[in-house]
Amino acid sequence: MLKYDGVLDKCEIICVGTELLIGSTLNTNANTIALALADNGLYCYWQTVVGDNVDRLSDQIRTSISRSDLVIFSGGLGPTEDDLTMETACMCCDREMVFDQESYDRMEKVFATSGRKFSKNNIKQAMLPKDSVVLPNDNGTAPGACFVTKVNENHSCVLAFLPGPPSELGIMLNKYLIPELKPYTLHSLRNEYVHIIGIGESKAETMISDLIKNQTNPSIAPYASEGECIFRVSQSVDEDSKGEDLITPIIDKMRMTFGDHIYEVGQRSLREVVLDMLVSKNLHCAFAESLTGGMISSGIVDISGASSVFEGGIVTYSNESKVNLLGVSPQTLSDYGAVSKECAKEMAIGVLKAMNADVAISVTGIAGPDGGSASKPVGTVYIGFASHDKCDSIEFHISGNRMRVRKVTALKAFDYLRMLLLRGHYYEEE
Amino acid sequence: MLKYDGVLDKCEIICVGTELLIGSTLNTNANTIALALADNGLYCYWQTVVGDNVDRLSDQIRTSISRSDLVIFSGGLGPTEDDLTMETACMCCDREMVFDQESYDRMEKVFATSGRKFSKNNIKQAMLPKDSVVLPNDNGTAPGACFVTKVNENHSCVLAFLPGPPSELGIMLNKYLIPELKPYTLHSLRNEYVHIIGIGESKAETMISDLIKNQTNPSIAPYASEGECIFRVSQSVDEDSKGEDLITPIIDKMRMTFGDHIYEVGQRSLREVVLDMLVSKNLHCAFAESLTGGMISSGIVDISGASSVFEGGIVTYSNESKVNLLGVSPQTLSDYGAVSKECAKEMAIGVLKAMNADVAISVTGIAGPDGGSASKPVGTVYIGFASHDKCDSIEFHISGNRMRVRKVTALKAFDYLRMLLLRGHYYEEE
Repeated sequence: MLKYDGVLDKCEIICVGTELLIGSTLNTNANTIALALADNGLYCYWQTVVGDNVDRLSDQIRTSISRSDLVIFSGGLGPTEDDLTMETACMCCDREMVFDQESYDRMEKVFATSGRKFSKNNIKQAMLPKDSVVLPNDNGTAPGACFVTKVNENHSCVLAFLPGPPSELGIMLNKYLIPELKPYTLHSLRNEYVHIIGIGESKAETMISDLIKNQTNPSIAPYASEGECIFRVSQSVDEDSKGEDLITPIIDKMRMTFGDHIYEVGQRSLREVVLDMLVSKNLHCAFAESLTGGMISSGIVDISGASSVFEGGIVTYSNESKVNLLGVSPQTLSDYGAVSKECAKEMAIGVLKAMNADVAISVTGIAGPDGGSASKPVGTVYIGFASHDKCDSIEFHISGNRMRVRKVTALKAFDYLRMLLLRGHYYEEE
Repeated sequence: MLKYDGVLDKCEIICVGTELLIGSTLNTNANTIALALADNGLYCYWQTVVGDNVDRLSDQIRTSISRSDLVIFSGGLGPTEDDLTMETACMCCDREMVFDQESYDRMEKVFATSGRKFSKNNIKQAMLPKDSVVLPNDNGTAPGACFVTKVNENHSCVLAFLPGPPSELGIMLNKYLIPELKPYTLHSLRNEYVHIIGIGESKAETMISDLIKNQTNPSIAPYASEGECIFRVSQSVDEDSKGEDLITPIIDKMRMTFGDHIYEVGQRSLREVVLDMLVSKNLHCAFAESLTGGMISSGIVDISGASSVFEGGIVTYSNESKVNLLGVSPQTLSDYGAVSKECAKEMAIGVLKAMNADVAISVTGIAGPDGGSASKPVGTVYIGFASHDKCDSIEFHISGNRMRVRKVTALKAFDYLRMLLLRGHYYEEE
């Protein structure tokens, strides 16, 4: 357990890596850490990126530990000579590095299971700051660590080290580091996330602008996210308001405004919400995809436990495969084209039968950059639905590049399925 | 035209915005600027994010202009009171702000064409540092600017201001700012990227450690990337070496060491390399996926132009669908299980036939967190291949969580297909 004598008031982030400085890697780690800090009532005042250079890194560390109570590092924990974050920080803090047998054993085991060879370089990753709290790496080899250093008579600072690969950093941060910091946060925040789909961010903000303006506690802040919109409702819990739930009344007001467009109050993604609905209704599902090319099926499989209701999917990218595998009629293709309401319906029926499912969703459309016509420009998408007793389809127009059109199509497909399961139809016309 | 008395040797980036500090916006601007600097031989040593706060921003500005020759700012040029980047910088540099009639007229015109109302606040955006070079905003209202400030007897620094919205920043940076800076760059860089798969980062580095150590120009730097490894070979082109290609001999040496593990020298992803191979051989492909759930098909469809060789895919998540849609024999499933070499082969043959393709890849495995056994633990994956005259499969063990196992499986599947197209077999045993 981390022992800090005070409150973590000022925090900052230092990301180490030349690849960030030369732009070959987008710095998502700073964002991941920033979000986790904000969610836990820790105020972040600076983010810095420095390269794999001892002099500049140590200058930065000295500046940061003298002005902040918490400095979180990402990157530079790897096995190579370039990776020198912990060493440099220990040098700045006059702290020894010691061999950690437990971390070493863990690494050896990871290597053994994956059949990789444990190289000499990896031993370096078991050298950790003396008297630090070890942060296990559930997704890789390099362990993280955190420790407290006394900067001067009146000031101590927590240094925490996370690995650079995002899949390793995220889990270490939220599962192991945040719980160590939590006892030393000044503000306790209670956060709730309201997830909205089918309404753009600026329109959604306008719809509740009075609510946003007149609220200080809880505060309401929008987060843009591709194809959806998330509001964070954040209550600062101090001595005065302890116990009182100020969030629920706000969420009730938001429900009045947004209705069924709110698909989740909490942490679940749209896919998870849909999967949970399918599980609770015991409905097996299947997907037929054209432009999304497997994104929708893969989106369900992303969730552990999908196998209880997901039968499978068929990606029909050519007309031939639409006919052969989904039983779309050649007449439909020649009369209406592959990108049509009619084709979407037949695709949904086809995959429902092929996979012996209870509900099926299909998508067909033009992702671009090529293709499209005056009547069906790039971004035109049809989503179909089929169940044992119902079949329907709907048209969307999605702006943006190929990737955005495909991603938003996948979201719309899940939302269409959600609304049909919830109400039997898509949103009421507004 | 910008007039600077010297060479822009050290550069840094300051991004201003509380939304970056709390993680509600991902900082893509730092990446965009970093890439433009690297491409033009300008060395970036620091990236900093600070909030919309005069004290912390001015502290940062003073530090930055004293250590760097060029400081590029993004954000804080908007019309609201929060937007104070230029004002604060001018305060730190003792520089007046003056009204710029030309920028004002341009803004008025932009508002007129878009039917928006020109508010009083926007006038603020026509106030620019005295004697600065104005950088026009082709995609929005706020103009940018750059100017030179004398920090002390021996040091001057260029300050450049770009707007926060990425669509405005990118074009202003590359179209207007870079040409102003170009005359003062010392180095011109030539970069090449060597992409390696099937060898981990630390092993790959060890294999060419002599080469890395003994090279200064070109320099060789590794980049870790999930499931693969990238080296950047970067030649500094100065007066002496002008015209001489120092990169090719290095890459030749790397080819000797890594052989077929190098799948690309350039910018293409593994999927793009495989797609290009399929196109050049005019081979139509299909995929049968279990644990990846559509990721492999979707990975191909990500690339514009996939339709010329991609027929489609079948995601068979249940045993029933493996039998019904891919013709896997129930006997195989009961004798060897769905996660087996035999099943992978039959899945590949099944999807080859169903999609009428020339080559097919299948994957089956255990992504976790549940499932698995002593003989086939979580992470056990079989990848199958089928063509008209060949069928094979291979076993992998992949460490990490559900998402990592699935992502690396997709990479391995593409690599398996690449090697079979290239050599007719997977790598030689080492």
